[in-house]
Amino acid sequence: MLTEECEALLARQFPFWDELTPGEQKRFCESMAPVHYDRGTSIHSGSEECVGLLRVKTGQLRVYLLSEEGRDVTLYRLFPGDICILSASCVLEAITFDVFIDAEEATDLLVMNSAVFHALADENVYVRCFGYELATKRFSEVMWAMQQILFMGVDRRLAIFLTEELQKSGGDTVRLTHEQIARYMGSAREVVSRMLKYFESEGVVRLSRGGITVTDAAKLRVLAGK
Amino acid sequence: MLTEECEALLARQFPFWDELTPGEQKRFCESMAPVHYDRGTSIHSGSEECVGLLRVKTGQLRVYLLSEEGRDVTLYRLFPGDICILSASCVLEAITFDVFIDAEEATDLLVMNSAVFHALADENVYVRCFGYELATKRFSEVMWAMQQILFMGVDRRLAIFLTEELQKSGGDTVRLTHEQIARYMGSAREVVSRMLKYFESEGVVRLSRGGITVTDAAKLRVLAGK
Repeated sequence: MLTEECEALLARQFPFWDELTPGEQKRFCESMAPVHYDRGTSIHSGSEECVGLLRVKTGQLRVYLLSEEGRDVTLYRLFPGDICILSASCVLEAITFDVFIDAEEATDLLVMNSAVFHALADENVYVRCFGYELATKRFSEVMWAMQQILFMGVDRRLAIFLTEELQKSGGDTVRLTHEQIARYMGSAREVVSRMLKYFESEGVVRLSRGGITVTDAAKLRVLAGK
Repeated sequence: MLTEECEALLARQFPFWDELTPGEQKRFCESMAPVHYDRGTSIHSGSEECVGLLRVKTGQLRVYLLSEEGRDVTLYRLFPGDICILSASCVLEAITFDVFIDAEEATDLLVMNSAVFHALADENVYVRCFGYELATKRFSEVMWAMQQILFMGVDRRLAIFLTEELQKSGGDTVRLTHEQIARYMGSAREVVSRMLKYFESEGVVRLSRGGITVTDAAKLRVLAGK
């Protein structure tokens, strides 16, 4: 990667940039490579060798658990600007669990391969600290997802999900299929469809082929318990 | 706390000890105070101010989630020698979720109060890194608990639980009530009692007032899927 472009990018994105030696900065930049994944591609699978640190440029990643029976539970999704740390789990010894990561859409990433990240994390405590701090941030996101799955009814989880989607995308329409929503929420499609029909009968949303349009945002917030 | 005793202890327990300046070592030692909690005492409650870093000397801590309706799910337990980081969650910004921490038994702790930990973590990246690395380790433990709750049947979870308890305590008897086991596993007492009776009918355990004695360890391992 071109050094100037890299510098400008990394200095903004990585808080440890100023703590790297010039030599480390150079290795960091040289190791960053753009990679494209088609929609639906698997990027990381359980305990296999890991890709490295990923920065999302465009598209979307989904990080999930997969049971032996094939049931999957979404932990969180990553969007442009986000950095994926669990794809570098083989570098951080304290991460001992397996997750799966797919490209949910056509996705462009910048990848720092795990060998370089490993070497930098070993020699520079700021790099290591960045990795663990980011992992802890994801821990928080996972706990939020888990609390919803363990403690909340589907009505409230769906209301929270729609609210958060609109915050991300702007506008008043969530352009996802019921199947996608079910997967992101850790529920079943039938359950989501039934609940959406109930929301529609209550005048909270309008369902169409294009997606789910929120027609009563105040009522949705009440359902979300906010 | 006496400096020599502290030094000997902290140098063993905290990997960042050698990275502290003499002044920081002194503040660290002076801030460590022994505290006793009676069995059942609440040590940390949700988003309230946090106690700080805790090192378990004797006894046991339980870290759990609590729903608005009062349902609780055990995330993990801490034993002598373990360090509790979520009790210092107010120091680490990346931790944004609330947990509850109780003394499960009469427990003696060494406490570094959160103000001192905060100051040291701010000025010394090794201290900060230690905190985040420990949080990531707990993340791994929580994910293990979550995978059991989300994906496994009660039979397998109970077999795993009994196996792990015996690894911790040695011997062949788990001295816990059905109620306690249910709480640690995130299940209900009735469900655990029924499953234990089934295990007994299969010749895997023998139930008595003193606890649950494993009579066929090999079969228990098969049930645990190990």
